Amino acid sequence: MSTVPLPAAEPFKDRPSKFAQLRALLESKPTEFLLEAHNGLSARIAEEAGFKGIWASGLAISSQFGVRDNNEASWTQIVDMLEFMSDATTVPILLDGDTGYGNFNNLRRLVKKLEQREIAGVCIEDKIFPKTNSFIGGERQPLAEIDEFCGKIKAGKDSQSDPNFSIVARVEALIAGWGLDEALRRAEAYHRAGADAILIHSKLSQADEILAFAREWGNRAPLIIVPTKYYSTPTEVFRKAGISTVIWANHLIRAAAAAMAQVAREIHATQTLVNIEDRVAPVSEIFRLQGAEELLAAERRYSTAPEAETGAIVLG
Amino acid sequence: MSTVPLPAAEPFKDRPSKFAQLRALLESKPTEFLLEAHNGLSARIAEEAGFKGIWASGLAISSQFGVRDNNEASWTQIVDMLEFMSDATTVPILLDGDTGYGNFNNLRRLVKKLEQREIAGVCIEDKIFPKTNSFIGGERQPLAEIDEFCGKIKAGKDSQSDPNFSIVARVEALIAGWGLDEALRRAEAYHRAGADAILIHSKLSQADEILAFAREWGNRAPLIIVPTKYYSTPTEVFRKAGISTVIWANHLIRAAAAAMAQVAREIHATQTLVNIEDRVAPVSEIFRLQGAEELLAAERRYSTAPEAETGAIVLG
Amino acid sequence: MSTVPLPAAEPFKDRPSKFAQLRALLESKPTEFLLEAHNGLSARIAEEAGFKGIWASGLAISSQFGVRDNNEASWTQIVDMLEFMSDATTVPILLDGDTGYGNFNNLRRLVKKLEQREIAGVCIEDKIFPKTNSFIGGERQPLAEIDEFCGKIKAGKDSQSDPNFSIVARVEALIAGWGLDEALRRAEAYHRAGADAILIHSKLSQADEILAFAREWGNRAPLIIVPTKYYSTPTEVFRKAGISTVIWANHLIRAAAAAMAQVAREIHATQTLVNIEDRVAPVSEIFRLQGAEELLAAERRYSTAPEAETGAIVLG
Amino acid sequence: MSTVPLPAAEPFKDRPSKFAQLRALLESKPTEFLLEAHNGLSARIAEEAGFKGIWASGLAISSQFGVRDNNEASWTQIVDMLEFMSDATTVPILLDGDTGYGNFNNLRRLVKKLEQREIAGVCIEDKIFPKTNSFIGGERQPLAEIDEFCGKIKAGKDSQSDPNFSIVARVEALIAGWGLDEALRRAEAYHRAGADAILIHSKLSQADEILAFAREWGNRAPLIIVPTKYYSTPTEVFRKAGISTVIWANHLIRAAAAAMAQVAREIHATQTLVNIEDRVAPVSEIFRLQGAEELLAAERRYSTAPEAETGAIVLG
Repeated sequence: MSTVPLPAAEPFKDRPSKFAQLRALLESKPTEFLLEAHNGLSARIAEEAGFKGIWASGLAISSQFGVRDNNEASWTQIVDMLEFMSDATTVPILLDGDTGYGNFNNLRRLVKKLEQREIAGVCIEDKIFPKTNSFIGGERQPLAEIDEFCGKIKAGKDSQSDPNFSIVARVEALIAGWGLDEALRRAEAYHRAGADAILIHSKLSQADEILAFAREWGNRAPLIIVPTKYYSTPTEVFRKAGISTVIWANHLIRAAAAAMAQVAREIHATQTLVNIEDRVAPVSEIFRLQGAEELLAAERRYSTAPEAETGAIVLG
Repeated sequence: MSTVPLPAAEPFKDRPSKFAQLRALLESKPTEFLLEAHNGLSARIAEEAGFKGIWASGLAISSQFGVRDNNEASWTQIVDMLEFMSDATTVPILLDGDTGYGNFNNLRRLVKKLEQREIAGVCIEDKIFPKTNSFIGGERQPLAEIDEFCGKIKAGKDSQSDPNFSIVARVEALIAGWGLDEALRRAEAYHRAGADAILIHSKLSQADEILAFAREWGNRAPLIIVPTKYYSTPTEVFRKAGISTVIWANHLIRAAAAAMAQVAREIHATQTLVNIEDRVAPVSEIFRLQGAEELLAAERRYSTAPEAETGAIVLG
Repeated sequence: MSTVPLPAAEPFKDRPSKFAQLRALLESKPTEFLLEAHNGLSARIAEEAGFKGIWASGLAISSQFGVRDNNEASWTQIVDMLEFMSDATTVPILLDGDTGYGNFNNLRRLVKKLEQREIAGVCIEDKIFPKTNSFIGGERQPLAEIDEFCGKIKAGKDSQSDPNFSIVARVEALIAGWGLDEALRRAEAYHRAGADAILIHSKLSQADEILAFAREWGNRAPLIIVPTKYYSTPTEVFRKAGISTVIWANHLIRAAAAAMAQVAREIHATQTLVNIEDRVAPVSEIFRLQGAEELLAAERRYSTAPEAETGAIVLG
Repeated sequence: MSTVPLPAAEPFKDRPSKFAQLRALLESKPTEFLLEAHNGLSARIAEEAGFKGIWASGLAISSQFGVRDNNEASWTQIVDMLEFMSDATTVPILLDGDTGYGNFNNLRRLVKKLEQREIAGVCIEDKIFPKTNSFIGGERQPLAEIDEFCGKIKAGKDSQSDPNFSIVARVEALIAGWGLDEALRRAEAYHRAGADAILIHSKLSQADEILAFAREWGNRAPLIIVPTKYYSTPTEVFRKAGISTVIWANHLIRAAAAAMAQVAREIHATQTLVNIEDRVAPVSEIFRLQGAEELLAAERRYSTAPEAETGAIVLG
């Protein structure tokens, strides 16, 4: 497994805050990348792989709970999981925050709760709570009123304590069938209302409408994309289009689901571990990812008991 | 991916309760198997793979939170995750419940909370709270007093509402270096105090001491083992030894960790999804595991909005 | 203080379930009464005073948290408090459940969570989530669509496991300025959709419109009222009008707030406890309400430590 | 009711942090006072009455949940309530944190969680987890080992981020029957280990042993007392003894319990509200305490809906 050193549980003292880190990512000239994570373990793995930021995907978090991405988990259950994710990492987390879980007042409360847990920003989308299945294919789904959504953005921005906390406005106009002009009109309004970046979403398997949007947008504010469907477009194309940030939005939960299903079926079929032992992480790697070493060192420092003397042998 | 039909969110009406299912597994003549799960998703995957029961591993649950298996997550945070796991499955869950998270009174409260969430049983171990790293290699670690641990078992059994809720007593005497006689003495005491099964644990890479214990034990009560270290012992040996239940204790979290690390590193290195798209579960599989179909059907039944007409296209 | 014996922590075995108790209250010929409670302590006090049921008020629960009754506390934070309330009592609790905290699907999930915690029923109102301040005095506030609200009721009823779990439909038409006919039309529709009782709400200081509604309603289904504003109407009038259940909706939180403010100011002004010691409950009463005796008895039963021998002296 | 203006939900920008406020209270020359609170409402009431700090009593918080003060509520359930309390106030909160809910590592985690929620300090006591009923009258109850407790204090101090977060060491030696010398020996050791203040506890109805301790202690570090039992001692005596802080430890929960019981019994007996309406806080006062005005103002600022025009009429 990885030999990347374990990130410290606490941010390095001389490192910018997570809020400043995310803002810098969004505003950086080179295209940056966020990877989805959905719990403390996947967040730490994303950081260890080298990602400078994490996308706390609503789909992935609801999926790991075993519920649907339709506000079945409460917003505080999501915040509780985010707290574990933030505690396990030193890079910033951007929350995929649905509609802000209600109106402008719910968003104000959410922003405060996120800042307390060092979640660096939230992305809100111009849909209506509670989320209906947003990718059902009908034409021209209703979106939030522009004024109402701008009021929400303003309320969120006014309520943040750290100047670098970021609010990203996700424009659903293309997906909802309202066309490029409406998407641009909304992006401009959200930008003026204070959004720190625009996330433009598309469900097409080609990046055409995204690239058209980017051309018209012309870098008025950082632009974020989520190429889940148009994944075959070369990243170089996004770079040239001036995309600020690319989000790989759901790939760790999908990696985990596939691997767990395969291993579960194999153990069930064979009734033994011998075939899979080498294909799963050793228990020692789980302990390493949990930071077991730090606790052993702390026990030596703070505990008077003479027990903590030898190496760890782990069983679970 | 799997074509196994999605388990219904609600237990089938004519099916035994989860409590009865677990008890039947423990008492069945043929050797049965439990697979570790640590969140709603992994629990559903374990069930779909065919497992008749699930081991809610303390190591795996703490690992997915990104904390250590030393009571860093509170017992209610664990219970909250168990509730998601139970809601996502129809097979019984046995909780790896440390020491019961405190004394006899904490166990009484835990039992009530577990029953409310249809968690079918709890395994408690004869160690001392808060858990120190139990597999540190010193000789003769202290264990709970036998009388105190028996009082805890009795308190737990007296507080259950469903007669089939199970309390499993995990004997740590072999691991803690106290030898076979002490292990047998404790198992017998715990059995008399009301434990529904005995879990005998070993950290050796050969099953010898487990098999010796099983021989001496002679089926006084169902015997459970966790062959994490002695995984190379053929399952046939356990069957012949009369083992009631074998727990594959941490293999889904290990499968997930390995797969996520690999995919994270590859996406980071290549800055594209094209190479990994076929190695992760499709988004549609995530939706299937979440039960998206049931919600679409329910929307047709309960919602007056005409929107839910066409097929789902998913993006995340 | 009270000498009423402490209610057992566990329901008496030969007593009807909490679900059956609430249903019987709703359907009883004589007018019955529910008292507001907002945490475990107030719930136990309501039961000890003789009330056969408890109203878990949204206003009171949000108030004790220190937040506003506008979905600032998440629905799971409310459910967590309800669990403490249910654990502390043996009489049924009816939750004041806003709109069901979302759409039909959120209500389905809520019903399952309530049943697990033995909350006997939920009252939902025909407003729109997230709750805006519902008693702002404008004319003709928008209400939920009748069809949509009936779909929600049906979904809730279809998802309950215990046949006696109750769903009460709260009609806001009078308060929202839509008049008697609309109120009756809605009540009838909700009744047909499966509501077990109708709560008709009024903000007038006289009971006239409530009584007019009751006359027209003619006992088609149990009728519940909340005479917070028209409190001076004699209860005999409600009885004669055939009201099933009267809810005293917020009086324990108001009693607590007044008493705490008075004591806080007096201690602050005088810098001593001597003047207030006799006006507050003794510490021993707090211990009694917590059930300290039961734990001492249990320690004698389950604990081997010889410590629990003498009487309790309590300090806090 | 009170006409004290509502404290702003957010700390005033030019005000010292809550951490600095608590530290200043502890170190101030004049004797200062903390009042118990147990939820958001009582915390706000304590602040409005003029108290500069709040004691988040373990007894009171468990009591309001309806459970016993024996670690029946999990530590995260307590932290969740503290978060509501902190959000509702601008003065600092000192948590009555039992033993730190486990060993040195549990305390480290607790300190981080408290700081995130702006809880200004924690008081830990030299007992053993899980708390047994600490005021059972036997002689010479076991206390934590001094070295182990000092290690815990050091670990807590090393893990705080804000230099003004305070850790108070509560010395149980007098209550546990070990005498003055042992109490002094422990206080000195805890002080050297880094405790920011010493809380010396007594169960006698006279302050003699407390005053003797204060004399011997001689202001080596701030001294805190809890005169629940010796409440009749004039405060002037404590001032002269150089006591830093006096905690009125459980008087709001006792005020609330007495008032609620009385009102509940009266409503039950009379079946009407007319007799109690003037003795409880008006509903408008509940709304004021919740900060309803601020939300109305915010709706005017951020909401485009024209609804929020007229005065609030409240019903609950």
